[in-house]
Amino acid sequence: MSNKSNQILKNTNAQILDEFNASIMFDKELYAQDIKGSIAHSQMLCEQGILTKEEQEAIEKGLLQVKDEIESGEFKFSLAFEDIHMAVESRLTEIVGEPGKKLHTARSRNDQVATDFRLYVQEKTLSIKKQLKELISTFITVANKHTTTLIPGMTHLQHAQPLNFGFHMLAYANMFKRDFERFESSYKRNNFSPLGSAALAGTPHNINRFSSSEKLGFEAPSSNTMDSVSDRDFALEILFNISTCMMHVSRISEELVTWSSYEFQFVKMSDEYATTSSIMPQKKNPDVPELLRGKTGRVYGNLISLLTVMKGLPLAYNKDTQEDKEGVFDSVKTVEISLKILNEVIKTMIVNVDKMESACKIGHLTATDLADFLVQKQNMPFRTAYYITKDVVACANSLNKDISELTLDEIRGANSELKDISEEITMYLDLRNSMNSRNSFGGTSTIQTVEQIKAFENWLEKIN
Amino acid sequence: MSNKSNQILKNTNAQILDEFNASIMFDKELYAQDIKGSIAHSQMLCEQGILTKEEQEAIEKGLLQVKDEIESGEFKFSLAFEDIHMAVESRLTEIVGEPGKKLHTARSRNDQVATDFRLYVQEKTLSIKKQLKELISTFITVANKHTTTLIPGMTHLQHAQPLNFGFHMLAYANMFKRDFERFESSYKRNNFSPLGSAALAGTPHNINRFSSSEKLGFEAPSSNTMDSVSDRDFALEILFNISTCMMHVSRISEELVTWSSYEFQFVKMSDEYATTSSIMPQKKNPDVPELLRGKTGRVYGNLISLLTVMKGLPLAYNKDTQEDKEGVFDSVKTVEISLKILNEVIKTMIVNVDKMESACKIGHLTATDLADFLVQKQNMPFRTAYYITKDVVACANSLNKDISELTLDEIRGANSELKDISEEITMYLDLRNSMNSRNSFGGTSTIQTVEQIKAFENWLEKIN
Amino acid sequence: MSNKSNQILKNTNAQILDEFNASIMFDKELYAQDIKGSIAHSQMLCEQGILTKEEQEAIEKGLLQVKDEIESGEFKFSLAFEDIHMAVESRLTEIVGEPGKKLHTARSRNDQVATDFRLYVQEKTLSIKKQLKELISTFITVANKHTTTLIPGMTHLQHAQPLNFGFHMLAYANMFKRDFERFESSYKRNNFSPLGSAALAGTPHNINRFSSSEKLGFEAPSSNTMDSVSDRDFALEILFNISTCMMHVSRISEELVTWSSYEFQFVKMSDEYATTSSIMPQKKNPDVPELLRGKTGRVYGNLISLLTVMKGLPLAYNKDTQEDKEGVFDSVKTVEISLKILNEVIKTMIVNVDKMESACKIGHLTATDLADFLVQKQNMPFRTAYYITKDVVACANSLNKDISELTLDEIRGANSELKDISEEITMYLDLRNSMNSRNSFGGTSTIQTVEQIKAFENWLEKIN
Amino acid sequence: MSNKSNQILKNTNAQILDEFNASIMFDKELYAQDIKGSIAHSQMLCEQGILTKEEQEAIEKGLLQVKDEIESGEFKFSLAFEDIHMAVESRLTEIVGEPGKKLHTARSRNDQVATDFRLYVQEKTLSIKKQLKELISTFITVANKHTTTLIPGMTHLQHAQPLNFGFHMLAYANMFKRDFERFESSYKRNNFSPLGSAALAGTPHNINRFSSSEKLGFEAPSSNTMDSVSDRDFALEILFNISTCMMHVSRISEELVTWSSYEFQFVKMSDEYATTSSIMPQKKNPDVPELLRGKTGRVYGNLISLLTVMKGLPLAYNKDTQEDKEGVFDSVKTVEISLKILNEVIKTMIVNVDKMESACKIGHLTATDLADFLVQKQNMPFRTAYYITKDVVACANSLNKDISELTLDEIRGANSELKDISEEITMYLDLRNSMNSRNSFGGTSTIQTVEQIKAFENWLEKIN
Repeated sequence: MSNKSNQILKNTNAQILDEFNASIMFDKELYAQDIKGSIAHSQMLCEQGILTKEEQEAIEKGLLQVKDEIESGEFKFSLAFEDIHMAVESRLTEIVGEPGKKLHTARSRNDQVATDFRLYVQEKTLSIKKQLKELISTFITVANKHTTTLIPGMTHLQHAQPLNFGFHMLAYANMFKRDFERFESSYKRNNFSPLGSAALAGTPHNINRFSSSEKLGFEAPSSNTMDSVSDRDFALEILFNISTCMMHVSRISEELVTWSSYEFQFVKMSDEYATTSSIMPQKKNPDVPELLRGKTGRVYGNLISLLTVMKGLPLAYNKDTQEDKEGVFDSVKTVEISLKILNEVIKTMIVNVDKMESACKIGHLTATDLADFLVQKQNMPFRTAYYITKDVVACANSLNKDISELTLDEIRGANSELKDISEEITMYLDLRNSMNSRNSFGGTSTIQTVEQIKAFENWLEKIN
Repeated sequence: MSNKSNQILKNTNAQILDEFNASIMFDKELYAQDIKGSIAHSQMLCEQGILTKEEQEAIEKGLLQVKDEIESGEFKFSLAFEDIHMAVESRLTEIVGEPGKKLHTARSRNDQVATDFRLYVQEKTLSIKKQLKELISTFITVANKHTTTLIPGMTHLQHAQPLNFGFHMLAYANMFKRDFERFESSYKRNNFSPLGSAALAGTPHNINRFSSSEKLGFEAPSSNTMDSVSDRDFALEILFNISTCMMHVSRISEELVTWSSYEFQFVKMSDEYATTSSIMPQKKNPDVPELLRGKTGRVYGNLISLLTVMKGLPLAYNKDTQEDKEGVFDSVKTVEISLKILNEVIKTMIVNVDKMESACKIGHLTATDLADFLVQKQNMPFRTAYYITKDVVACANSLNKDISELTLDEIRGANSELKDISEEITMYLDLRNSMNSRNSFGGTSTIQTVEQIKAFENWLEKIN
Repeated sequence: MSNKSNQILKNTNAQILDEFNASIMFDKELYAQDIKGSIAHSQMLCEQGILTKEEQEAIEKGLLQVKDEIESGEFKFSLAFEDIHMAVESRLTEIVGEPGKKLHTARSRNDQVATDFRLYVQEKTLSIKKQLKELISTFITVANKHTTTLIPGMTHLQHAQPLNFGFHMLAYANMFKRDFERFESSYKRNNFSPLGSAALAGTPHNINRFSSSEKLGFEAPSSNTMDSVSDRDFALEILFNISTCMMHVSRISEELVTWSSYEFQFVKMSDEYATTSSIMPQKKNPDVPELLRGKTGRVYGNLISLLTVMKGLPLAYNKDTQEDKEGVFDSVKTVEISLKILNEVIKTMIVNVDKMESACKIGHLTATDLADFLVQKQNMPFRTAYYITKDVVACANSLNKDISELTLDEIRGANSELKDISEEITMYLDLRNSMNSRNSFGGTSTIQTVEQIKAFENWLEKIN
Repeated sequence: MSNKSNQILKNTNAQILDEFNASIMFDKELYAQDIKGSIAHSQMLCEQGILTKEEQEAIEKGLLQVKDEIESGEFKFSLAFEDIHMAVESRLTEIVGEPGKKLHTARSRNDQVATDFRLYVQEKTLSIKKQLKELISTFITVANKHTTTLIPGMTHLQHAQPLNFGFHMLAYANMFKRDFERFESSYKRNNFSPLGSAALAGTPHNINRFSSSEKLGFEAPSSNTMDSVSDRDFALEILFNISTCMMHVSRISEELVTWSSYEFQFVKMSDEYATTSSIMPQKKNPDVPELLRGKTGRVYGNLISLLTVMKGLPLAYNKDTQEDKEGVFDSVKTVEISLKILNEVIKTMIVNVDKMESACKIGHLTATDLADFLVQKQNMPFRTAYYITKDVVACANSLNKDISELTLDEIRGANSELKDISEEITMYLDLRNSMNSRNSFGGTSTIQTVEQIKAFENWLEKIN
């Protein structure tokens, strides 16, 4: 090979290597956190007499200018900077000269990146919590409208017992409430500042980690600097919390898809959240819930990715850890847009009350209620009650009715034991009565449903 | 096909199907929780007048007898029972007759299994916490012995800065402390009783879910019965907490394997925790930490399994959920034995202080300290300091020494700028001084390490 | 602590450690492969003059006796043996004395376990292929019965176009055919014998690896002994093949669950494969397909487990690899029982032809055919055709009919442009015609469906 | 809320929804495949008389112009197009007018996207195969240079037996050869054209799927159109193949990191592939192999993502499947750059032959050879041989030597049984002899290593 082509090859390799090593194309996402962290660090250094007041002011002003340049799109990111930290610092030094070089005193890339990434995760945790709160409010609003709307409660996708639709919505409100609590909990558990951990061992400089920690909104500085630069538990936690949350999203999405089918028709997606066919105007594809359901895949994948990266890593910092960010960014964006969209979908869906209620009349949902009535109120042995119930069901089938639709006479005619049965029996066959009879704490009766809604409203008022 | 062979085929299929459907071969693990749950349920039913005192007493006595039979090995589990709940109930009814049949009043298999499984997860969460506490204590004990033992702090598996070994151990204590906190948090978040949720909608019976909840040690009954029978967040949380914990186990294991190599020799596994070759007595295979590291795989797998099962499941109960238990049982057993074993490994490992300390003399670990000294104490421009440092390193290399081993004369001879340098310089080249100079909060200095140990001792005293 | 309690503690620890280290409780699954491998090894050693004929015969007889003892349940497995290889060898030596000790000449535990495990995977690969063949045959049989049965083809769970149900079944036959091919391919790719690789470097003994390889049914000995003892690609491949296969199982299961709902009623599970409620005889829970769907979780988990174990393992053998087997055993058992059960489910399901066909009359499935007719046969501009089609749909809606049910007169009255339209138009609105019109290669027309069935029958005859 | 702000909100929602639904920002990656597929489709339509020659020529010319516009950067992608297929088609219609609208005859978005994506996967499979071939060649070249370079063969990261380094490199060549074969196999298995499957059922148009299939380089059209639009096995296969390949990359990377440590020093990364510290010039961080090792995480995650997406999806097309592409694109890019970089790393690494060879003198690696010699050549009982070996090891330890370094006199003095031992014994203690003695097929002897290299060279010549 000629020297020249050799050189070209070398350059090509060098470029590919830069591309491979550099993180700037994704970690630029952290620019705001990086600048925030650097300002806090410079203020602390000034308090400790390591920077003069003039130096600190120059640095802070310079950093804010860099921020403006980035936000206005003026700043040109390039692989040459390798990462966002270098990019910001280089530009700062161009702007402010010598003081810029002093900013890195008493810190290292290792604690800087740990701080920036943690700030990001903490901020996003708060904003996801806010979105969850809104989504829960929406479920509560819908639930409130439908505390007496009957829907067949399903097990195994088979009609089992009559519920009210509000109660069904509250099941989801509870799931997202647990998600909220998980984010709340991981926020607190990880709210410690790695800043000042330096490369891994701390620093000989007379710094005050409590001060920079406070300025950044952390509870305290982290306890062990070696752990601090290699800890990614906070990132795993947000990935897991998002995975569980999106699993819940996938469950309501599955129901929305099923309910939107011609066979069910329990709900209709509003026109915005379904795609239609130009020729078949009645066809509405529930693309949005399907895509929401599909998004579960990527957040599960991101979780397993970071778990894999961290497996078997020796202390302290290893370059493998650079692979920690993209998955988190992707999962955060996914859950943010998904919660936003789901909120709108739920808010705007058209609930087909008639379909839900008439579906309750399939499957003789009150057969159990009838048997219970015979045993408890009529003191029949269970075996007898059982055979009578079967006869009533058979009678209803022969009339092409649901047992809830039988007249008293029809019931009385179904089995000789029933020939003088009191009218009370019709109450036990009634769907709405059946729903309201399940009045134990947390149950589906309208009374219990309203109680649950009140409890949620109280909770929503208190949280932030 | 003849009728007879047809029948045999049918029987074979039926048997395979039983095997496929039945959960008893793994959910018998839950026998104690099932009996505990049933006793609480019966007591509550009695309080509410649904069972008579005599019936309740017969049931409770019967259930305790079943427990004895199971624990003595007398009880024969069979596929015919399908699951542990049926197995216990059938035997109960054999023993006590009619009252046994009344036990199932106002509950269903759905809330029963949810309660049993949750009780198991909560109990195991507490026992894992206890094990973590012991493991942390062990790390603290080892740390306490080695607050002045030097070890090369690594980044990228390259010598970076001198640390003390106690400080290194504390990094792991911090990881396992976060694990402890995660288990603590998931315990609280999920400490609600599903009992009384019945199939999905609650029950018409006049039950008191607060009473059975309290008897079982839960904080309160769960809020929404439909959510309660389909919620498996508590199982996902323990799977995630175990995954993160085992990831930490894999990191210390990786270090133990590396440190046990001929090349490192920083530690020796005690004879119990290493296998030896009959002919090569000096060869000790670190099988135990390797296996600990390998166990990460299965707990990650169990997490992804349940996440997959739950994806897209409609409400409320679906048979898919039967797949929730085996993975949790396996992960729990894995983390229990792993923490037990790791605790012994750490307790009994032989720390090779000499090897650790002499390894610090490779890599000129105090070169940064030297440059810092020149800049800060001698007010040299950084560029100058840098070139001088390079000369000192070169001088040390030519003498086949580490810079920490240079005499004052050798240092003075390394570069003309140093010819009159004060003896103070040797302090900055000294490894132990370098370690102790990193005295910022959380840093590696012996003072900071001792502070961290104290803080841990306080924490260990307070928690339970 | 007293010496005695100290000793007890030590014993307890030792026992826990044995439990932790030992693999015998799961690798006993490999007894047949272990004995088969040892017999082949002994025969080769005899051919090479390393064992005498008498020694080899004693060994072979002894091994077959051990096999009998294991299969009759006489053999007692104990943790003390650590693994199946040691268990078999110890018993062999008890039976045959000295020659037993010579069996291990020129091999090591590392190549022995690699051989046994690979034999297992290869044998199971063949038996899974056989099951897939049977399942595909079943789909073909069902397809053959339903080449003219209409079913609404769905996209987004919305009625899209009329299909025949046979064609729908063939989609699954194709999935399982690809699974078959994947197993076939991984079998060939991994059919190499690790035996004789010894610990990692081969052996100084004059062995003939080609001979033992041939005796075991492998194509040839593996190429590099170091790779051979650390390679687990064959295990990953079977785990992936099973995962993909079970994903296909989960898709048909999802459809079966949906189709079994009251809303769909396209199929009914046969009584054996659904659980019924005592009181509600018409309720059939599709537990079996639900459980099949849920099984996807565990096989995905097993795949990710082994991928995690293997990540970053240095060469050659590490104890981590002991974690390779349980997941494979579990996935193999899962796919075996699942394919068996699915085969029966498909064979015995009751296809509700009426429901499927009447469902085709919902959603104006032939609206596209109508528009196509107007454009292609009547040379209308697409815009015009579109508006006319909308009018026909509107007309049908007003009559509470599907467009396929409109009379010629009704059609002619729907829009003035149609007032003289030829009767041919009704053919384009006809559902069965619509299905048969999709006659391109691989399409849903009965002709194409029959062709696909023939192709499958040919393929099934050729494969083994 | 005012109407105006309501409108703004609606617009914002609409925009977010577009962002959520649209795939163009990632599927533009498929522009070349989309255009290629459309050209083939148009040519086939022309052959079948569905397009005129003029129309087809206009379309083909237009499509090539769109391609130029995209490649020159002139083309502006916008969310408004939703996906790449729409983007290309819209621009085509702008350019060529009416004929552009006819291009979509007899196909649908469902088969179009399936075709484009499969073309991408097939093309990338070929290019990855090419890279693997290059990487294997590099391993062969390095192996060829080091067939006599000793390195301690490790099990459990403990010295076990002396190998030659060429043999060690060949272990990796074998892994990547299996990867090559997996890609080769998945290519063949999936080389079928979905084009012409239309929405799910085929098309009434008189198309020739064999013709378009051939034009696109597929073996044949796919067999069942419903399966074809919902099949993503080909995507799962490339994700699995990449995962296994990257697992192999992580293993060599782990070894490179370990070997680069001060403790090992077996290799040095060339300056390009390691980062250095400005002050500590001797410190070289093996960032590149660390990052390669870390990349395993993302490809495992991408595999589990798609497996999750596909779980339980009913037939035929569902929007969830839109989530299939990003993970594949990411895994493909990851493996491409990783193989490229690894190839350079291996090519340019500096092998420290002295260190490797002197490391063989730690651990008495030939103790087993000595015992074998005593048993086989001296006919000692194994017990005796064992004790003598221990004495020789003890003697060597007391002299601070490895047993391979003992003189004949020293050996003879180690145990009275050896006092007249022939000089032959030293040969058995010799490291290089020990390595060469493992001369069974596939073993580490130089002869076997050279044979393996030859076999690889033959293979490399034949494949393409």
